[in-house]
Amino acid sequence: MVDLAALLGEDVFAAPTLNGFLAQGPRRWARVRARIQQVLAGGETVPGYPLADVTLHLPVEIADYVDFYASEHHASNVGRLLRPDAPPLMPNWKHLPVGYHGRAGTVVVSGTDIVRPSGQRKLPGDDAPTFGPSVRLDIEAELGFIVGVGSPLGEPVAVDAFADHVFGAVLVNDWSARDIQAWEYVPLGPHLGKSFATSISPWVVPLAALEAARIPLPGQDPRPLPYLRTALDWGLDVDLVVSWNGQVVARPPYRSMYWSPAQMLAHMTVNGASCRTGDLFASGTISGPDPAQRGAFLELTWGGAEPVTVNGQSRTFLRDGDEVVITASAPGSHGTRIGFGEVAGTILPARSAPRGPTR
Amino acid sequence: MVDLAALLGEDVFAAPTLNGFLAQGPRRWARVRARIQQVLAGGETVPGYPLADVTLHLPVEIADYVDFYASEHHASNVGRLLRPDAPPLMPNWKHLPVGYHGRAGTVVVSGTDIVRPSGQRKLPGDDAPTFGPSVRLDIEAELGFIVGVGSPLGEPVAVDAFADHVFGAVLVNDWSARDIQAWEYVPLGPHLGKSFATSISPWVVPLAALEAARIPLPGQDPRPLPYLRTALDWGLDVDLVVSWNGQVVARPPYRSMYWSPAQMLAHMTVNGASCRTGDLFASGTISGPDPAQRGAFLELTWGGAEPVTVNGQSRTFLRDGDEVVITASAPGSHGTRIGFGEVAGTILPARSAPRGPTR
Repeated sequence: MVDLAALLGEDVFAAPTLNGFLAQGPRRWARVRARIQQVLAGGETVPGYPLADVTLHLPVEIADYVDFYASEHHASNVGRLLRPDAPPLMPNWKHLPVGYHGRAGTVVVSGTDIVRPSGQRKLPGDDAPTFGPSVRLDIEAELGFIVGVGSPLGEPVAVDAFADHVFGAVLVNDWSARDIQAWEYVPLGPHLGKSFATSISPWVVPLAALEAARIPLPGQDPRPLPYLRTALDWGLDVDLVVSWNGQVVARPPYRSMYWSPAQMLAHMTVNGASCRTGDLFASGTISGPDPAQRGAFLELTWGGAEPVTVNGQSRTFLRDGDEVVITASAPGSHGTRIGFGEVAGTILPARSAPRGPTR
Repeated sequence: MVDLAALLGEDVFAAPTLNGFLAQGPRRWARVRARIQQVLAGGETVPGYPLADVTLHLPVEIADYVDFYASEHHASNVGRLLRPDAPPLMPNWKHLPVGYHGRAGTVVVSGTDIVRPSGQRKLPGDDAPTFGPSVRLDIEAELGFIVGVGSPLGEPVAVDAFADHVFGAVLVNDWSARDIQAWEYVPLGPHLGKSFATSISPWVVPLAALEAARIPLPGQDPRPLPYLRTALDWGLDVDLVVSWNGQVVARPPYRSMYWSPAQMLAHMTVNGASCRTGDLFASGTISGPDPAQRGAFLELTWGGAEPVTVNGQSRTFLRDGDEVVITASAPGSHGTRIGFGEVAGTILPARSAPRGPTR
């Protein structure tokens, strides 16, 4: 791991997060990237530490966190599971990238243990909700995008200004307690079923490193409204791999996503909402057309009805002690592959119920 | 306006926000309050500035922002308006304080002008959504609560530990574009219909100043699950007043709220979600049983069908140039009244549509 503060002699890299550097903008990002590439290509000895000797922290102090729902296959699968007698997609889904705000304060770095959340859930056949540990604890394999340069209140970010604002991408695991979520989510959306933890990978892959991964979207019909139209390709040919206790269970393809991250940012700000350095917006679960490409266990096991075999065991949702690791790679320049590192987490047992009155 | 940095000689009050002081906790809050009361009671000349000479800023750097939906009258009115053929309250509503995350980065201080948001909305009779300025721009009169002392990830805040964590209350106007919201909100909740701006009053009323305003809740049936039960009264006898272009149009009574702020915080963290200094959680629209007590124009005009008369004009939603001011007061000690200041905002015309491709 290269010590950029020592290599470049700049204090901005000695800070606990990248926020200061990210705020400096795309020209500066390009200059620093070129300088690092030059040094590494020169074969010089660079200041640094073995990866095994460092503790990785959140790369960015998260400002606001928004999670989208941009995979047509994921949204359709969830629709079929939850509303089997209705059209799988809601009427708005192909007109706008549906999304909602998550809890920025519980975004944690890869490797952070995840305590099984407790909460209210109403189980099938029960008359009233009960309180207890989630029995349908799930993952969502996603890509997230980190805003470097913010925008002022009242001024939308144009869809083609994406790379002027966004520095790069991280892997995201949006842990989800499906039983808590199912009971709470009408009419204002997911809250406690998601807010206990969202894990991200410890480094940010710059958009500049993903030039060879840029591809057209699969296609949008109906044609989006003008503020979402662009001639620039921001589909991304990123291959994710989801491992459950060391066994690969899914390979979600980012190339299958319906909405691009440039459209997500344009939509998120079209009402005049500002964005800030450190904002994280994520794609939502990435699921491809093939059953083995589904990025959530809810879909992979079809609501728990079709268990998968993990190390010889029949499994549906997460048990205590389970570890999930998501990795990803994309085409780099000159036939190389760009790695995204990983986002990993292990489930710890639920804590005992909250204390009663303390005084 | 007293200059606390000069009065108390402490750097923490010279900071741009109160976050540093709020993190110091309830004993410290009590000592500082006692010291200020002592000085003011002594009739000494205190360092300060005329209110007319100061520019008020956000009192707190907002960490996460959650908005609840805790008024039974509001939730029932909205249910009747949007789902006239179904029970007005969703099945979960009396079991948990329903809430969702809002955009922390667009919380602004009272007096900030509000640019009318544009976005997608599908008007009655239209086959497809169109893009344009909101034609149903509304307010939501609320109280918000500011967290001083945070809590660690994985450890719920007990319902009776409310005052160990929360410093005080602000007035909130959760501006809402009802047409944008109605089209976007299924299934993940409100997003662009709310995220363009949320205004708060420029000072925080400490919980310690609201002791005389504490009252029992109106009553909860069914009895909540144990983690939401408390013998402490955190109903609040706060009277709000909503003025539209100088004319009082509603007097929402906080005492009519179904869920208490202590229950909101306990619920928000029961899944192990941490909270942080600067977290803001708001009550949702405050509406009482009487039509003149409704804290949103959606309810006050019954979805636009029953206009109100403002300065002789028949009005439903907000026009450009309109100003809304929300004030509030509560019983103080020895028969006095505690003022909450105000949260004010004026509507500016929508900006032109976002630029097309820039390169």
